[in-house]
Amino acid sequence: MSKTANTALLARFIAIVGERNVLTDPADIAPHLEETRGLFHGDSPLVLKPGSAEEVSAIMKLATETGTVIVPQGGNTGHVGGQIPHDGAIVLSMARMNRIRDVDPAGGTITVESGVILQRLQEAANEAGLMFPLSLASEGTCQIGGNLSTNAGGTAVLAYGNTRQLCLGLEVVLPTGEIWNGLRRLKKDNTGYDLRDLFIGAEGTLGVITAAVMKLSPRPKSIQTVLAGVVDPDAALKLFRLAENTCGPALTGFEIMPRISLEFVLRHIEGARDPFDDAHPWYVLFEISSGQSEEAARGLMESLFEAANENGLIRDAVASETEAQRQSLWLLRESISASQKPEGGSIKHDVSVPVAKVPEFLEKADKAVRERIPGIRVVSFGHLGDGNIHYNLSQPVGADKAQYIARWREMNEIVHGIVLEMGGSISAEHGIGQLKRDELAAIRQPIEIELMRRIKMAFDPAGIMNLDKVVKV
Amino acid sequence: MSKTANTALLARFIAIVGERNVLTDPADIAPHLEETRGLFHGDSPLVLKPGSAEEVSAIMKLATETGTVIVPQGGNTGHVGGQIPHDGAIVLSMARMNRIRDVDPAGGTITVESGVILQRLQEAANEAGLMFPLSLASEGTCQIGGNLSTNAGGTAVLAYGNTRQLCLGLEVVLPTGEIWNGLRRLKKDNTGYDLRDLFIGAEGTLGVITAAVMKLSPRPKSIQTVLAGVVDPDAALKLFRLAENTCGPALTGFEIMPRISLEFVLRHIEGARDPFDDAHPWYVLFEISSGQSEEAARGLMESLFEAANENGLIRDAVASETEAQRQSLWLLRESISASQKPEGGSIKHDVSVPVAKVPEFLEKADKAVRERIPGIRVVSFGHLGDGNIHYNLSQPVGADKAQYIARWREMNEIVHGIVLEMGGSISAEHGIGQLKRDELAAIRQPIEIELMRRIKMAFDPAGIMNLDKVVKV
Repeated sequence: MSKTANTALLARFIAIVGERNVLTDPADIAPHLEETRGLFHGDSPLVLKPGSAEEVSAIMKLATETGTVIVPQGGNTGHVGGQIPHDGAIVLSMARMNRIRDVDPAGGTITVESGVILQRLQEAANEAGLMFPLSLASEGTCQIGGNLSTNAGGTAVLAYGNTRQLCLGLEVVLPTGEIWNGLRRLKKDNTGYDLRDLFIGAEGTLGVITAAVMKLSPRPKSIQTVLAGVVDPDAALKLFRLAENTCGPALTGFEIMPRISLEFVLRHIEGARDPFDDAHPWYVLFEISSGQSEEAARGLMESLFEAANENGLIRDAVASETEAQRQSLWLLRESISASQKPEGGSIKHDVSVPVAKVPEFLEKADKAVRERIPGIRVVSFGHLGDGNIHYNLSQPVGADKAQYIARWREMNEIVHGIVLEMGGSISAEHGIGQLKRDELAAIRQPIEIELMRRIKMAFDPAGIMNLDKVVKV
Repeated sequence: MSKTANTALLARFIAIVGERNVLTDPADIAPHLEETRGLFHGDSPLVLKPGSAEEVSAIMKLATETGTVIVPQGGNTGHVGGQIPHDGAIVLSMARMNRIRDVDPAGGTITVESGVILQRLQEAANEAGLMFPLSLASEGTCQIGGNLSTNAGGTAVLAYGNTRQLCLGLEVVLPTGEIWNGLRRLKKDNTGYDLRDLFIGAEGTLGVITAAVMKLSPRPKSIQTVLAGVVDPDAALKLFRLAENTCGPALTGFEIMPRISLEFVLRHIEGARDPFDDAHPWYVLFEISSGQSEEAARGLMESLFEAANENGLIRDAVASETEAQRQSLWLLRESISASQKPEGGSIKHDVSVPVAKVPEFLEKADKAVRERIPGIRVVSFGHLGDGNIHYNLSQPVGADKAQYIARWREMNEIVHGIVLEMGGSISAEHGIGQLKRDELAAIRQPIEIELMRRIKMAFDPAGIMNLDKVVKV
């Protein structure tokens, strides 16, 4: 923000929410300025914690009137710097807007404010006898408003879709302060341009999501969770196809991970254990859910095993018998990022390619990055069923961390080059934020970026809403 | 269009596609000016039939340069007049852009031009051993470009979603003539504003969809199709809940229809027959699909019957044993609109309410319309599982058709008033077009219409792209 807010102006913002609901001490503000990976360090004189859409509206009106940049922030778990303020912008923390406004089990919907933590939303769905399927490693911290603003993915996308597919309606405060009430609960509604999907994934640059109607699903009667050792990504893909054909929509998750990720997790994560006697080059973790019975889910699993064995696709497999066993299998997958930290620097990618091309992508990318940095450790894991790989690169053993991390863009260029050749995406589920904004502009058709700019200017004529994230105006 | 195109200008448009690919004779143009219900009568001096996105681009550039309004048209099956030109606008028929560019069975995608007829797309999917689930009564005539532009629904939405959910990528020619290549094939791609979903459902007012990547699904191994007689919509809703809980995602269709619709169909549609000995007040037609086996689908059906009988929800039921029987059950549902024609005037609604409120809506609406027009015949049928009812009102026996149809808006007001009170939509799957544009502006928050206007102006600054449909600028 070129116009750094002065004390008198800050006081006007503070008056809207009250002194109890702001942070002005740099020590209190600090946690709102750093994201988890440490890639971006922000600065801001003020964190506002509004308690209602009306307060957000008053803030946005004042911001538009005075040209003050506002950066909305949920649980601050984003990976691309979209939530980090710069140049004295004001942080709009949604943490106090954490009410569950309504649960409608008959209608299969829940209406929540955007500051509700994902895990609490999952719990509220459970209490109503239903399920909110969105599931992420950061679910204990991230907020549904952030999930919506980044169209978060996670491990249940295969069957239930991204956050976009789980949302029926939104309440949004526009940069100009108007409150759009789009809190609809309808499965079908073809009445004009799809504003809802425009706000979803806009990373807080077009407005502030203050509430949402989310879809709930029936809770499966039984979930069979299986960890299988396979020889390579090609076998994993073949197993995925077989599982899709055998189980149809009952296949509710299909993750892939390499041996090295299991080694990292076993080395660094408390309680992690290898369920197999032998090491396997690759692992898949998949789930089969039945709305009918445990017998039905087991039946599908056994049919799948039979077909997989006929084709020699599985080296070994273990199915969870209890919820505790299920959790211990998922621990091996959900702890991968955390287990990379003690291994030194990690250069990360969140890419997708057409599902059928995942093995080819892995082969090409592995070759290219190993040529560039001998000894680099490829920790490529993720949502095989969605074609989405977290292509994380741990530094060679003994390398200098800072020197290694300084090669982030260089390695991105190699990996993203391969992704783009294969018709893939450089951001499958994390978004653009600050990290990938200029790269996106460089790889996309100029008209696409131009349309995004025009939309941004149509919604935020004063240029105050999370300015210069996603697209530069 | 205020500036009616003169002969010299028309010649410039004709030169782009060649004389063989235009219609200029009023008799040839006539079928492009009338929609199926006869509510709108258009006028146009010219129908252009481009054969490529490049030709569409040249047309749009000339249109923007000369301020000539262009109206894209698919199979001309739309119900809200979105495809009908007025005031001398030029029709852009997509009929020649009917190539299937690519079928990718491994990736589960098909890339088609927008003029491909829906049924042909379904057949191409079948030939590849997969399924394209979108299914509509007009599938033999409508085009995928029109389906996308109106976000068409149909009978498979419950499990597979609207057209929006079936689309991965688009190629769009903008009003200014640029070609946006968004033909992506990715399940996950969070890279900026969701342009794809903005074009989907925009009814050709933001650009011309020229091609699309559509998702294909595995073909179920078995589909069990059941027609059941029930006592009232409340019993139908309870049966739907039971089916959802019993079958989960294997429940792939759930339609409702009243006795009178069956009577109309039996009276007027060749080959239709009542599979029951007794008359029932209401019917539901549902499908259970299994990716596994016929045995599995039957197992689910039997579990459902058992539970339904315990609760006394079904009066009688018949399940199809063969594909011919399946078709004959669907005939009873798909022919309802056609069977209404010989019964005189029909005032139609395409509304949705939260699924749980369908019985309440039907009760309130029936009471209100019968009070206003005694003897009116309520033919309310549709997609119960989506909360979407085609609330069609056939004229009283012996009434004057023209006088009855003249009360269209009056009856809309009554029915839509009840729908809106219940948080519903006045257009669940047909769109806005001309028919509901002013009504939409009247019922929505001014800021919502204003945002739509701003988007329209950002994409179509010259105001030439299907002008004044959906939103008036």
